[in-house]
Amino acid sequence: MVRIRQLGMIVVIIGLYMGDPTQSILCGDEGMWLFNNPPKKHLKEKYNFDATKEWLEHVQKSSVRFNSGGSGSFVSPDGLVMTNHHVGADDLQKLSNEKKNYLRDGFHAKTLAEEIPCKALELNVLLSIKNVTDQVNQAVPKNLSGKDAFAARQKIISEIESSVADEKNSIRADVVTLYAGGEYHLYTFKKYTDIRLVFAPEQQIAFYGGDPDNFEYPRFDLDMCFFRVYENGKPAKIEHYLKWSANGSKEDELAFVSGHPGRTNRQNTIAELEYLRDIGYPYLLQRLNRYEVLLGSWSERSEENRRRARELMFGVQNSRKARVGGLAGLLDPTIMARKIKEETQLLEFIKNNDKPEIKELGSAFDVVKKAEKRRAELIKDYTMLEAGSAFFSAHFNYARALLRASEELPKPNGERLREFSNARLPSLKQQLFSDEPIYDDFETLKLADGLSLFATQRGANDPMIQKILNGKSPRDRAFELISKSKMKDPEFRKKLFEGGKKAVDEANDPMIELARLVDADSRKLRQEMESEVEEPKRQAYAQLAKARYALYGSSTYPDATFTLRLAFGQVKGYTEDGQKVPAFTTMSGLYQRSKEHQDKPPFDLPPRFVACKDKLDLTTPFNFVCTADIIGGNSGSPVINKNAEVVGLIFDGNIQSLVLDFIYDDVQARALSVDSRAILEALRKVYEANDIADELTGKKRIAPQN
Amino acid sequence: MVRIRQLGMIVVIIGLYMGDPTQSILCGDEGMWLFNNPPKKHLKEKYNFDATKEWLEHVQKSSVRFNSGGSGSFVSPDGLVMTNHHVGADDLQKLSNEKKNYLRDGFHAKTLAEEIPCKALELNVLLSIKNVTDQVNQAVPKNLSGKDAFAARQKIISEIESSVADEKNSIRADVVTLYAGGEYHLYTFKKYTDIRLVFAPEQQIAFYGGDPDNFEYPRFDLDMCFFRVYENGKPAKIEHYLKWSANGSKEDELAFVSGHPGRTNRQNTIAELEYLRDIGYPYLLQRLNRYEVLLGSWSERSEENRRRARELMFGVQNSRKARVGGLAGLLDPTIMARKIKEETQLLEFIKNNDKPEIKELGSAFDVVKKAEKRRAELIKDYTMLEAGSAFFSAHFNYARALLRASEELPKPNGERLREFSNARLPSLKQQLFSDEPIYDDFETLKLADGLSLFATQRGANDPMIQKILNGKSPRDRAFELISKSKMKDPEFRKKLFEGGKKAVDEANDPMIELARLVDADSRKLRQEMESEVEEPKRQAYAQLAKARYALYGSSTYPDATFTLRLAFGQVKGYTEDGQKVPAFTTMSGLYQRSKEHQDKPPFDLPPRFVACKDKLDLTTPFNFVCTADIIGGNSGSPVINKNAEVVGLIFDGNIQSLVLDFIYDDVQARALSVDSRAILEALRKVYEANDIADELTGKKRIAPQN
Repeated sequence: MVRIRQLGMIVVIIGLYMGDPTQSILCGDEGMWLFNNPPKKHLKEKYNFDATKEWLEHVQKSSVRFNSGGSGSFVSPDGLVMTNHHVGADDLQKLSNEKKNYLRDGFHAKTLAEEIPCKALELNVLLSIKNVTDQVNQAVPKNLSGKDAFAARQKIISEIESSVADEKNSIRADVVTLYAGGEYHLYTFKKYTDIRLVFAPEQQIAFYGGDPDNFEYPRFDLDMCFFRVYENGKPAKIEHYLKWSANGSKEDELAFVSGHPGRTNRQNTIAELEYLRDIGYPYLLQRLNRYEVLLGSWSERSEENRRRARELMFGVQNSRKARVGGLAGLLDPTIMARKIKEETQLLEFIKNNDKPEIKELGSAFDVVKKAEKRRAELIKDYTMLEAGSAFFSAHFNYARALLRASEELPKPNGERLREFSNARLPSLKQQLFSDEPIYDDFETLKLADGLSLFATQRGANDPMIQKILNGKSPRDRAFELISKSKMKDPEFRKKLFEGGKKAVDEANDPMIELARLVDADSRKLRQEMESEVEEPKRQAYAQLAKARYALYGSSTYPDATFTLRLAFGQVKGYTEDGQKVPAFTTMSGLYQRSKEHQDKPPFDLPPRFVACKDKLDLTTPFNFVCTADIIGGNSGSPVINKNAEVVGLIFDGNIQSLVLDFIYDDVQARALSVDSRAILEALRKVYEANDIADELTGKKRIAPQN
Repeated sequence: MVRIRQLGMIVVIIGLYMGDPTQSILCGDEGMWLFNNPPKKHLKEKYNFDATKEWLEHVQKSSVRFNSGGSGSFVSPDGLVMTNHHVGADDLQKLSNEKKNYLRDGFHAKTLAEEIPCKALELNVLLSIKNVTDQVNQAVPKNLSGKDAFAARQKIISEIESSVADEKNSIRADVVTLYAGGEYHLYTFKKYTDIRLVFAPEQQIAFYGGDPDNFEYPRFDLDMCFFRVYENGKPAKIEHYLKWSANGSKEDELAFVSGHPGRTNRQNTIAELEYLRDIGYPYLLQRLNRYEVLLGSWSERSEENRRRARELMFGVQNSRKARVGGLAGLLDPTIMARKIKEETQLLEFIKNNDKPEIKELGSAFDVVKKAEKRRAELIKDYTMLEAGSAFFSAHFNYARALLRASEELPKPNGERLREFSNARLPSLKQQLFSDEPIYDDFETLKLADGLSLFATQRGANDPMIQKILNGKSPRDRAFELISKSKMKDPEFRKKLFEGGKKAVDEANDPMIELARLVDADSRKLRQEMESEVEEPKRQAYAQLAKARYALYGSSTYPDATFTLRLAFGQVKGYTEDGQKVPAFTTMSGLYQRSKEHQDKPPFDLPPRFVACKDKLDLTTPFNFVCTADIIGGNSGSPVINKNAEVVGLIFDGNIQSLVLDFIYDDVQARALSVDSRAILEALRKVYEANDIADELTGKKRIAPQN
């Protein structure tokens, strides 16, 4: 699955902190292009396609951003929005109750009245982009100190954003930083907040094949979901929406993806990639493998264990697959050679430049190298202590948050650790006082494993380890800590939080005492990581971005920033281990896959698919792959043809695409889509949802209400 | 499961090479006692039990060794032998064919005529033990060089063994080295080679709960199997056999285990234990976790994948559980403190000893410490190259064996690598020319993973890595090697082997070229490991054994050597995470566990158990635990009461017992047995095998034949 949220955890664990510099040497159908700077030349030369102003505006305004972390598109003039089932999953979960499990069983509103309003879902549609780089730069004189420059920039950005009229509170204006500060663009969005659920299939067909097939291809997933945007209590009337293609796509055809890639790190230097390849990813994968085996083995002991571990297990497996794929890319000498070539070109440009302000930027490479060296020294202890892997439990997380809150909150706002700033207090409190269930046995399992890992990492004779274990084995110590700590009780946490330092000091809770025991070391590691790794790198990457911008200007595209981008490529199979992997799968393949697995989970078919097999045209294309440049955040993006007609719906990348974080590749990396023909076939024949199919194909309009 | 074979692989990987010195400070019901040196005093004092000469002789002669790696016992005067299903599994497999899967479905010979002769199974019964230490030592004068002493010792041992009359070729005589050379005993065995299969239940009930429940407790396994020994084509008439207890055992009752523990390492110094705890086990577990995730994720993609990976997966999971348990013990400060106390006592004894030949032994501790330091430096590269983890594939193993055979075989026998000695040639050829199926996709998967692991371990810029990968990614390189190598073809291997160096040199096989590329480095690592780690340790441990023997003499028991031992302890539950784990489970618990898991594999019940539920007395005790000191090799040992009556059948240890490799513990470590009452209940009511039940309980004799 390609979604931002899923990868979020990992970003924190391995600490990828960096700016947004740009890519330089383009390869094949590379690029996540800005709508105000599209690859017109390339499209004309390679595909003889004119990306006209009208075409671009139409696609841009048909595209929808899900602020929960995905993409979507308008697919009818009456506000129908298409996205992935896994993008809508949170909303399906929130709308479910004890009697109705819409996430698992699906949903179909047969009338407008049956459409259910979502809770706190916001959709954005990009109306306009304005380049405000000069205005921003003029407001920030060159001679200012770093701190003053930062303040001056924030001020002018706020002014620009506030200048956009928003009488009805339906406009959102953001100044977006691109090319790591090379350009500033003002993005103005139309904001929709009345969103209603229209249709979702069963999770079993949306995520068919589950974890075993996640990031794999061939696939058979009907990962779709439909919402409708309302205005003034009625379906919104939409000028720009995507029409449905009558014939879908075919091999070698040009396809576009309009969506919101979340983050790429294509400006990473070789030193950083080598760190990730040789140290960061291997160390992370060791832990992920360990967690997967731990949780898997525990889950197999009972169904209740499995239920308790399920969410974490899914996150671990998803992350593991993603990192295995990314690492495989970094270990591919062809890919690395391209990165080295690109870096050499930039370095030569800097070295041979006449302007001293460019020439001096070259030192940035060494700064990154030095920072990566330091990061390698710190990462293991940092991960154990400050990232908390040694104390892998809800109890510890609460205990440390309470301990630190008692120390941080009395300080002036500007001097606190960032998660305790006034702006973040509401979210901190929400987490601290949450009453989500905590299971002692599960927490003991994780904590014992974390303690064992830390003990073997440092060596069990280490004085800090001995203090932490306090004369006990990891298992016994974990049991003692979890069973004696009162951190499980939200009321107790609330009492301590409100009682401040005195209450925390007198709490006499063993988990708080453990957090206290390691806090000096943890804070020191954090401070070292921030000042010796993150900050030097932030500055160095800003310098490199400047150099890149001097070399390429805006002739290329900036790193992904969860803003709207246009990608393109061909529908195309690929070769893996000497075997040709075809571009398309069919509905017939779905039944075959289920049969190969004796219909066992996660390859079992939902009853509706079993019942209607004979009605379906089994030659209908189901999923397909193309070479478009996508990344997490693109989930739910429409795939369209030259006529801007829907031919598919992005829902994943294959495992080889996971290197796209660092570099574009079209040899094996592919974007995965649900075929538009499968969507219609399933709506009409499996779900008897002719109303939606007719709306998609323009055969039906929603009657005006009231 | 507690069997030697399962743990074999790991022993090779982490290279535990050592002698057999003795344990010193006894704890609780510790000990794997020699039958000619039983713990009479302890048994009398603590349990008021007289282990008379008659009792000991009876138990000794009722005990049976399975030379395939397990234990058993005579349980009728007509040659009936009881052991575990998993000890008999190899034989069940060999006797099965396309029509009859006895391993999976079980077997019951209703008449003697239906009993099936096993292939190449040998059982031994220990007849007598004679201490020949003086005779051996007198034949080895003190002034001989190491090499000459070795030869002289071999000579006298051969003479002693040959002196035992064996007119009917039914006697086996072994001089056994105990206390690492402190004593030599002549063991004389009666040898049985006509063994026939009598009864086995379904594997699903014998290994109920599969991997999730392996090494766990509570358990519900009917892990039993019955054979019969024949002489001259008739059931052997057995004087010493164990009678069946009418009432089984009960909480706190004394129980004995008579069996063949395979190997323990209780003489390990603290330096070695710290190496294992902080380096050896964590490094091994990283790889086991990695394999488990790799194989698991591949298995989930298709049933055929699962079938191909099954055997390796089971080995990996079994090893992983065993090592997690062992590591948990090493991380327990209480256990480590006991080892330190013991080592300090020995060191003080040596230091304060008046005899110079004892005093000088103290340096051995430093020798081990230095060797462990060197081992830590070598282990990662050694594992990758010489142990071959970097090239994890059948193809590489064959290629290297052929390459080395072409270099080693022309050398004089004494100068070859040991696996190429004349004595081992038949087994080498058997492996090399085996036609067991090899699957390219599975081998590619493993090889790609091995190459990735090695690349990240050394860093992908390492010159050796670059040579190995040859400009390709691990995955592409693995695919190239596997698809282009002809190692899969047994005929090709045979041709190369017989063609010698010239044929191998001209084979033009990429896997042989890869083996050649790394062979100099591999051989160097092996040589360093042997000369700087193994040999110094072998010598040092022999010195420490000498010191221990000087301190304790034979007042204790020697390390396990797969010879007959007597262990004892109490039937006793334990406490885990504050929960009491009762000593006994019941048949009712079996049905409950199945229900908890909705009867899903591996918790599904065999149809016979479903059908006969109502007939069973569900209060019948099923499995139980006791504190007896056991280890791999004890599988199939009888558990008997003071009257030498069968109350149970050893089949496993719990996960906490895995530390028994290094030290005895009775806090949580437990031996797991099938209750004798469950055996009878199942035989009578589930399998309608009243004939066997009657034979066990003495109600039926086998009528004389002919």
